[in-house]
This record gives sequence, C-alpha cells and structure tokens, in this order.
Amino acid sequence: MESVDAIRKVIRTIPDFPKPGINFKDITPILSDLALLKSAVQHLKKPFEDQNITKVVAIESRGFVLGPMVALELGAGFVPVRKEGKLPRETRSVAYNLEYGSDRIEIHLDSVLPSDRVLIHDDLLATGGTAAATETLVERSGAEIVGFTFLVEIPELNGRAKLQRNHKIHVVVRT
Amino acid sequence: MESVDAIRKVIRTIPDFPKPGINFKDITPILSDLALLKSAVQHLKKPFEDQNITKVVAIESRGFVLGPMVALELGAGFVPVRKEGKLPRETRSVAYNLEYGSDRIEIHLDSVLPSDRVLIHDDLLATGGTAAATETLVERSGAEIVGFTFLVEIPELNGRAKLQRNHKIHVVVRT
Repeated sequence: MESVDAIRKVIRTIPDFPKPGINFKDITPILSDLALLKSAVQHLKKPFEDQNITKVVAIESRGFVLGPMVALELGAGFVPVRKEGKLPRETRSVAYNLEYGSDRIEIHLDSVLPSDRVLIHDDLLATGGTAAATETLVERSGAEIVGFTFLVEIPELNGRAKLQRNHKIHVVVRT
Repeated sequence: MESVDAIRKVIRTIPDFPKPGINFKDITPILSDLALLKSAVQHLKKPFEDQNITKVVAIESRGFVLGPMVALELGAGFVPVRKEGKLPRETRSVAYNLEYGSDRIEIHLDSVLPSDRVLIHDDLLATGGTAAATETLVERSGAEIVGFTFLVEIPELNGRAKLQRNHKIHVVVRT
C-alpha cells in the first residue's frame, strides 16, 4: 500500500481556481494512478473497518469517485447526495449558505433508514458547508452517523467547526 | 454474482423527469445494495478483461460512481471528464449539442496519452451526445479507444448511432 505521503505528494494546489483567493486541490493525479487510487480507498476506510457501517453517503460530484469504493470495501451500500432537482424520487432537502446566496442538496427519502449506520464521505473538507448540510440530511433520516471520511482537509478553513463534535472526523491528508 | 435480470429489476423509470417527455432511469437502488453494486461492476468490465485497458474515462457526474470501480477491476487508472470550468489544469474541450443550445465538456490535457488504451464509461446511453463528445476528446489525445461500457441503454433513442462503428459498445441492461 502507498503511504499517505505518496498521496500527499501528487495532490496539486492550483491558486485562484475557480476564482481569486481559492486554492483548488487537484486530486486527479491520485485517480489516474492505480496504486494511489487503491491506497486512497484503504486509507479512507481504515478507522471504520469494525464499525458495522451499512451505508456510505457521498456528496456530488467528486465524492462519487471514491465513496462507492469505500462502501464496497466496508461491505456497505452507497447513497448519493445531489444538488437540487437531480434525484428523481421523493427527497429530503436542506439549504446551506454559500459565499453569496445559498444552495440546496437532497437525498432520496428511502435511501437511509433509522437502522443504518452511516459514514459520510467527500473528497475535500474545506469550509464544511456541504458536509454539515449532509450531516443534517442524514440525521433527519433517523440513522446513526458514525463519522466522516475526507481525502483532503484544508485546516485553515476550519470546516470541522461546522460539524457536530460527537461524530468522528477522519482525514487522510492535511494540506 | 447477481444476474443482469436482478439488476434490471431494480432500475426504476420515472416518467417526465427532469422534464416532460423524458423517462429518467434511476439506478440508485443498485448502488445502495452491496451485492448488486459489486455485480454491476463485474458486468461492466467483463468484455474488457483481456484488453489491456490502461485508463477508464468516465463522464460527470453519474459516470463517476461506477467508473473508478471498473478501472480498479481492470487494473487501469481513472480519468474524469467534466463540465466546462471544473477541471483546474490545462484542458482539451469539445462542444456538443443539447435539445436547446449546446454544452462543453473537458478533459485534463495530460490525463490520457497516446500510449493509453481507453475504455469510456457512463451509467446511461441515451441520446449519445456526451458519449460522442467524450469519444472526440479521447481521440484527439491520440490514445486508442477500445470501447464503451454503459450500465443502461435506452435503445429507442439510438444514441449508439452517434458513436464510431469501430468502437465496441457494451451495455449491461437495455430498457
């Protein structure tokens, strides 16, 4: 298995993308390298191996890349959280604030049940807005949130302050 | 392994979503069921097992769910194709027609090389617009396109007519 350092090394920071002041974290070099891709999944799932996770919930669209593989490795199902208007059946939805204005994300109403033990995944923990909104969505379903697993955290944005203290937050790379 | 029939059975058709006249194919029940999720990946990759695929290229955002797992199973890297303005580094881009107007998709310039053997994936082959645009993007990189693998095809929309005849088109479920 490749080390966390090997993964960190290939993540590229693109300054001022998509707009001035934002440092974009480009994880595509991890995805295109089979050994790094496999290792990223292993590092993401590790702390949750014995936690009886039944659903991995991931956030559109970059959470869709690693989320299903984490689910497979944990023996769990995969549940997508999408932007408003993308999921075709009955949904639960929640609004969250952006820099200017707000946005909504949704989850299928029957996708997470009170009996589920849920791990929430996204590639990046930045300001924490979508992660906190996803936490709210899953909580309202009555399921138990075991924790979060992120590939990359940008610590200076302090996104974790938006998440509830009782949920474990696992991060593979801080950058 | 679950059969193609078992997969077909859980795919739901939602009429007039996201707009009148469109029959949306909801594959989320496959994703939330571990056995079906695993089997879908196996069915998707099967015809390409001995084809020395080096890259699986998949289309935002539903192609991101199964594409990386197909890549892993084939021992290939994963390369995302995204809507305009989402990929941070230098890209190749191509326009394609929508019902009204047009849209652009992009691929990182250094993600697919002339030495690559490429499998293109999306969850759905409908009108074929994005699949054909992706074919163009990969072709311009100089790589060899071995084929396409789709989970679902809507045959009456005849999307395959937009794809080049010399590329193998594999579909798991027709509906």
